[in-house]
Amino acid sequence: MVAQTAPRFSATVQALQARFGERVSTSPAVREHHGKDESYFPYAPPDAVVFVQSTAEVSEIVRLCARHKTPVIAYGTGTSLEGHILAINGGICVDLSGMNKILRVNPEDLDATVEAGVTRKTLNNYIKDTGLFFPIDPGADASLGGMASTRASGTNAVRYGTMRENVLGLTVVLADGRVIRTARRAKKSAAGYDLTRLFVGSEGTLGVITEVTLRLYGIPEQISSAVCAFPSVKAAVDTVISIIQSGIPIARVELLGAGLMDAVNKFSKLDHTVAPTLMFEFHGTKNYVAEQVEAVEALAKDQGGANFRWAHTMEERNKLWQARHDAYFASLQTRPGARAVSTDVCVPISRLAECIVATEKDMAAASMPIHILGHVGDGNFHLIMLIDPNNPKELDESHAINERLVHRALALDGTCTGEHGVGIGKLDFLVAEMGDAISVMRAIKKTLDPDNIMNPGKILRMN
Amino acid sequence: MVAQTAPRFSATVQALQARFGERVSTSPAVREHHGKDESYFPYAPPDAVVFVQSTAEVSEIVRLCARHKTPVIAYGTGTSLEGHILAINGGICVDLSGMNKILRVNPEDLDATVEAGVTRKTLNNYIKDTGLFFPIDPGADASLGGMASTRASGTNAVRYGTMRENVLGLTVVLADGRVIRTARRAKKSAAGYDLTRLFVGSEGTLGVITEVTLRLYGIPEQISSAVCAFPSVKAAVDTVISIIQSGIPIARVELLGAGLMDAVNKFSKLDHTVAPTLMFEFHGTKNYVAEQVEAVEALAKDQGGANFRWAHTMEERNKLWQARHDAYFASLQTRPGARAVSTDVCVPISRLAECIVATEKDMAAASMPIHILGHVGDGNFHLIMLIDPNNPKELDESHAINERLVHRALALDGTCTGEHGVGIGKLDFLVAEMGDAISVMRAIKKTLDPDNIMNPGKILRMN
Repeated sequence: MVAQTAPRFSATVQALQARFGERVSTSPAVREHHGKDESYFPYAPPDAVVFVQSTAEVSEIVRLCARHKTPVIAYGTGTSLEGHILAINGGICVDLSGMNKILRVNPEDLDATVEAGVTRKTLNNYIKDTGLFFPIDPGADASLGGMASTRASGTNAVRYGTMRENVLGLTVVLADGRVIRTARRAKKSAAGYDLTRLFVGSEGTLGVITEVTLRLYGIPEQISSAVCAFPSVKAAVDTVISIIQSGIPIARVELLGAGLMDAVNKFSKLDHTVAPTLMFEFHGTKNYVAEQVEAVEALAKDQGGANFRWAHTMEERNKLWQARHDAYFASLQTRPGARAVSTDVCVPISRLAECIVATEKDMAAASMPIHILGHVGDGNFHLIMLIDPNNPKELDESHAINERLVHRALALDGTCTGEHGVGIGKLDFLVAEMGDAISVMRAIKKTLDPDNIMNPGKILRMN
Repeated sequence: MVAQTAPRFSATVQALQARFGERVSTSPAVREHHGKDESYFPYAPPDAVVFVQSTAEVSEIVRLCARHKTPVIAYGTGTSLEGHILAINGGICVDLSGMNKILRVNPEDLDATVEAGVTRKTLNNYIKDTGLFFPIDPGADASLGGMASTRASGTNAVRYGTMRENVLGLTVVLADGRVIRTARRAKKSAAGYDLTRLFVGSEGTLGVITEVTLRLYGIPEQISSAVCAFPSVKAAVDTVISIIQSGIPIARVELLGAGLMDAVNKFSKLDHTVAPTLMFEFHGTKNYVAEQVEAVEALAKDQGGANFRWAHTMEERNKLWQARHDAYFASLQTRPGARAVSTDVCVPISRLAECIVATEKDMAAASMPIHILGHVGDGNFHLIMLIDPNNPKELDESHAINERLVHRALALDGTCTGEHGVGIGKLDFLVAEMGDAISVMRAIKKTLDPDNIMNPGKILRMN
């Protein structure tokens, strides 16, 4: 609950109210709603929320905040997983959900430009008649600006890449209110520093993304999905490794542990085998998909994977993948009242089995239920640790498990975060991961945001 | 010719000589060799060249240069096209060609780490028994460090991307001599700012790249190449547009103008039809390549493209692509004694035909021979303008043609450089292209290289 105290940045709030009237909210409910994401971190509400409608308005707000040295936090759908949108130093939350226009779709160039508040599902729904789609799919129906900010990915990344590969250019409001466009719409460019990639994944700490130009892809002629149970997590992972090493362009390959399959069965009313499971998807022409399927079935069989259950119609496929997307919520049902603490390491695929096998020991020894799932084709997997929010010991234990896991991943030349980002939860891990390179990040932050007003406290400590 | 004058940075040179002995050269021949790339820009030799053998040595040199505020220019193979390695303010050339070790190949992870001086052909030769290859192929057998520095691409980029998509991580010596690694070897990461992409394409202005970790790909089961003549450049380009829009994963699609085909025939002793021509390559399984071929032949036929000449064996394919790679040298033979001035715009593919048709008028009106070729699947094409180096009017005319072309491309939401980089030739174009975003590039340069010693005068004016 948020106490209705006087805002710390009252001069800024008053100036915003004078300019934006009812589109500025200081109500406790609105502030509370904007002071929480899907992570386990406690509420940190902003002093006010402004519901913006244009890049020019964002520029005005940032300019004002810069004058008063007031923090600025960009907000899309609030579905981040590392406390990205928490106003830990107070300040102004810029709610971009009203910037929801699809500005341009260029089917012939396979690209589209959207305002930052457009969600991935809204875009896909809008373009479906063009025969194109946008593949990046974090679990939530996140805003595309937020997805760019956190360098999001999801189940399709093994084939289509992450936001890193799929953002062509951005419109960004800098920390002094100036507006830049990071790149033209050309498919490739060698024109100076790659500002697009610099802002993708910068979590609002260098500027506010207000428009995003994205790559689109043709909807494949044939899409086939399958589920297959394995005798062990290692057998499943070894199957994935051999698929990737064979160069089969699999579109999705997701691992779910046995406990999670049980949870998914219950939550989504399904009857899958309760065992370590891979969910596959294949994209291509009809013949090419058949070739891929044949090769993957053979590789799975070598590892004891059997009884592929196929989903060929769109309805069957949607049901299968809905189960995957529901896995997070299904896992929460296995311990009512629990909160989920999520891990997010990503390692070179040759080290994935080793990393997971070592981690399974931690899972078995833990005092709370832990589920495993992941985008294993990328070497990325998550633990969902279900902790009792009223038991600080469990939170500590989950942190210790995560810390061991991160250091295990770093020792295997992996990263502390494959797709969730750093937020407020991985500042120290990032230092461990980057070594001296952290100083380059700090220097960039310092020069582009000298007063540390852009989403302060995220990614980097600036003291 | 380089006059044997006393070096401007004599204290630095003396200190380097004391430390590196005979590996420091101040001979006019060596300085001249290192003061020239493949562009038309006049010689600008460094004060000395140091032949380095390790990252630690580069760090030592940069530290020394930082102390004396002496420019540092990294040198790989000297095959850049925009004056990137010219010592326009004097200084120390760091020749990385001796850093030619392949440090690690991880076939199971589809990656390799090399020292910056390893060339692309050396790497491909080294790994060929693993069944893997590295696809990025600028015309020259450039060093992989240099290719990362200029964000190089080439004929395979339409399928495999550029250095932007294919560098997983870098070791970089910063302007103060510190050494950083920009990323772990995980395939994806959301761990803070994307330093890898920041240094890729920074043309040595932010640091010296000393090691590169690259993505590798499985050599396709089937590779087929073909040549096809078209009634006009527009017909050829329209074919390419329909291929890309159909989502056919073509591996290469290169345009050569009629004049260039004539030149290639003569230079490489071939007998291709003298007409606007596309060269294609298809990668995949045997059946999948057959499907792609069938689809592309139908699309070409619609545009009057006929008589596909196929190259199925490796020998035939190498001959076909050697002709493409020789195109630059073949074009030079069409005007003996001439120098080539190259353009490099890249536009959204839907605007490519329009851009080329307008440019053909400039080509027809020009007083010098001009050839057209390009990686048209990416919307990227080059004019090769053959100027008399002793006739300043022709140089001026070529600049005027390039300037019109760049502004035409910018008006079509394109870029002034698809793959050659900015160097010293496109500083003003970059300003026109980036608008206010240029200030962000300047701020980054200023903070990471406050004394402007890293390849000064390239990409940005810093006064």
